[in-house]
Amino acid sequence: MQSLPGFRDFLPDDCAVRNYVFRRWREVARRYGFVEWDGPVIEPTDLYRKKSGAEIVDQLFNFTDKGDREVALRPELTPTLARVVATHEREFRKPLKWFSIGQFFRYEKQQRGRLREHFQLNCDIVGEADITADIELVALCIDNLRAFGLAEGDFIVRMSDREFWTDFLRDNKVGPERWDEFLQTIDKSGREPRAKTAEKLGKLADSIFAVLDRGGESERLGRVVDALRMRGLADFVDVDVRIVRGLAYYTGIVFEVFDRAGRFRAIAGGGRYDNLIAQLSDGAVSLPALGFAMGDVVLGELIAETPMARQQMNEALAAGHRIDIYIVIAKEERRVDALADVQKLRDRHHRVTYPFTPTKVGKQFQAAEDSGAMITILYGDEWPQLRVKELAKRKETLLAREELLDNVWRFLGFSGPTR
Amino acid sequence: MQSLPGFRDFLPDDCAVRNYVFRRWREVARRYGFVEWDGPVIEPTDLYRKKSGAEIVDQLFNFTDKGDREVALRPELTPTLARVVATHEREFRKPLKWFSIGQFFRYEKQQRGRLREHFQLNCDIVGEADITADIELVALCIDNLRAFGLAEGDFIVRMSDREFWTDFLRDNKVGPERWDEFLQTIDKSGREPRAKTAEKLGKLADSIFAVLDRGGESERLGRVVDALRMRGLADFVDVDVRIVRGLAYYTGIVFEVFDRAGRFRAIAGGGRYDNLIAQLSDGAVSLPALGFAMGDVVLGELIAETPMARQQMNEALAAGHRIDIYIVIAKEERRVDALADVQKLRDRHHRVTYPFTPTKVGKQFQAAEDSGAMITILYGDEWPQLRVKELAKRKETLLAREELLDNVWRFLGFSGPTR
Repeated sequence: MQSLPGFRDFLPDDCAVRNYVFRRWREVARRYGFVEWDGPVIEPTDLYRKKSGAEIVDQLFNFTDKGDREVALRPELTPTLARVVATHEREFRKPLKWFSIGQFFRYEKQQRGRLREHFQLNCDIVGEADITADIELVALCIDNLRAFGLAEGDFIVRMSDREFWTDFLRDNKVGPERWDEFLQTIDKSGREPRAKTAEKLGKLADSIFAVLDRGGESERLGRVVDALRMRGLADFVDVDVRIVRGLAYYTGIVFEVFDRAGRFRAIAGGGRYDNLIAQLSDGAVSLPALGFAMGDVVLGELIAETPMARQQMNEALAAGHRIDIYIVIAKEERRVDALADVQKLRDRHHRVTYPFTPTKVGKQFQAAEDSGAMITILYGDEWPQLRVKELAKRKETLLAREELLDNVWRFLGFSGPTR
Repeated sequence: MQSLPGFRDFLPDDCAVRNYVFRRWREVARRYGFVEWDGPVIEPTDLYRKKSGAEIVDQLFNFTDKGDREVALRPELTPTLARVVATHEREFRKPLKWFSIGQFFRYEKQQRGRLREHFQLNCDIVGEADITADIELVALCIDNLRAFGLAEGDFIVRMSDREFWTDFLRDNKVGPERWDEFLQTIDKSGREPRAKTAEKLGKLADSIFAVLDRGGESERLGRVVDALRMRGLADFVDVDVRIVRGLAYYTGIVFEVFDRAGRFRAIAGGGRYDNLIAQLSDGAVSLPALGFAMGDVVLGELIAETPMARQQMNEALAAGHRIDIYIVIAKEERRVDALADVQKLRDRHHRVTYPFTPTKVGKQFQAAEDSGAMITILYGDEWPQLRVKELAKRKETLLAREELLDNVWRFLGFSGPTR
């Protein structure tokens, strides 16, 4: 009995980390006025072929279903977004500001040992062509990382602009049919011998190298950086026109997020894709759009390696795991009364646990400590009085049973570690 | 461009309902000291065959992956739980009290139009043989429905006990090899002509009909009802030994939850399955266990049809959707200052939105109303004073900009509808 290669089990500690990440993502997206949505985890394979070409199928977790449909476990959300927006766009005021948290899949035969699933936050703005939306999206991406205790020394957003290059090529009389070829050469230039790049670029080599060597300038990217500076976020971004991301469908500003130390793969990436919804809907709906995705795996690695972020997470996890009250049943005759109180305490939303079977009092207190309970309430000889113990303070108080429900919050609200 | 049959899109309103259900499920499970975990959405098909026999494959969403593995989108969580517990049981103190919220799948060729996915809450206790755990599990199931504003008039937990029948058959000298046959006949007795049932039951027909006609009695079930009565939950349960659920692997008390009016399919179901972990782990690990699952679809229908529950949900959804602050930019010269404040307000976790592009003030106020914002803050002629408007009260206050951050909570904390 083994799980499939590339799929994770989430034991309670792993699941708590996952929930912590989801909770922060959700909280920050809502600060920005984004609303949550989701699509199916399976879509027709054609939806992805249509966006990315037939070669994408090699990387898909795709198969034929029992109804002879070619389907795929979703590798990304954008095609589903395009489908949903094209179907429902009249029902919503534009711009849409939508986010989603879900699981995504891939199946690359040659890369065994790598995960075949991960979770992603997707944030998209649909129906706004103005650059202010690009600025908002980059700020949201930055704040999504800051929320984990990550600072400007921990990660960097590298921004580029597809229009910078298409303008450059147009000015240099390169026909649009050759743009993809040039952009791919520029994309590879950092990983290839200069002579080889020069050969491919032909007579434009010198002027393109001049741009690449000085890092490039772009009036539009300058405006984005200025706007982020007014928000106090300029130290999180770098302009780098050498980045040419997802050429096939990005149309404007694009960005990628990396850890500063360069130890990990990209943490997040995205940009403007103004033509994609029209393309995927066969022209039925045309809306400018932009978005980014951030995965849970690299983010988790970066948090684990960053002391501030790791500490913040561990504090949140400790508070999340903790139960409030462990009921110690010292006399079995009191079990019925104790369980009646358990029910009432839980009805008031306290997290309460107790031993299912007769257990030595010492073992019950040990279980209470292990569970991270804030207090124990002992049902025993002093009945109808109860002995309340604040575990962090080692302080005990006798309380009449009829006062329990109205007073228990005093021991939970002000005692022990912060919640 | 269409989604696959049986798969739902979750537009923002649908996703909010889903999140509401998940949030309540999670909150109640934690009240009971349960911790969250999860497994992969795909498992080897054999894992399900092993538990339920080869015929289960007809109902699975199964396929062959690119590595020639027979795999299935998970139809249920219990086999994964058995696998994970068998692998990791030494790492955890027993009893485990684990819950999980996830998506499950099926593919029944003959039932087009029905959903092929749904979400489920699963709650399981592993490593406790005592009946107190059965009582706790039923109470948790009841509280999971009460949390939605559903009352004893809305739903009923029908409890039965497999041991009641196996004791009965043993007392009547029926060999264990024939128990399954008898139990299936009893299970079908309500849906079949009495003569046909009598024929199948043979000489035991009269005594079995006598039990079925009086509803059956069981000392163990009586203890469960008594214990639930002490917690104030007896009105939510009925003993009905005619229920014989999931014969193949349940071993003790079983239960099913239905709406009182009988309009819907089962809301939840579960019971004790003491032999399953040993069976699925080939005897490597043997632990008593019990659990239940509750799906999102029938629960959602019941909430929608129950006025109290619907109202409680709608209030929670309205509060969840709401943004706090809509920034009205009445003079474009103030945009930069306004956006600097937006960032600071969001850093303090307020939900803030603003118009991306120059927009007439009247339209901005309309957008603020539509977004459910609690207040607007107007940046305009009165600069460096800001005009704060509490939308519910229609009350306006002038505030110096430098006082904004320290004072904005006054307008959010005490004005407008409850949050």
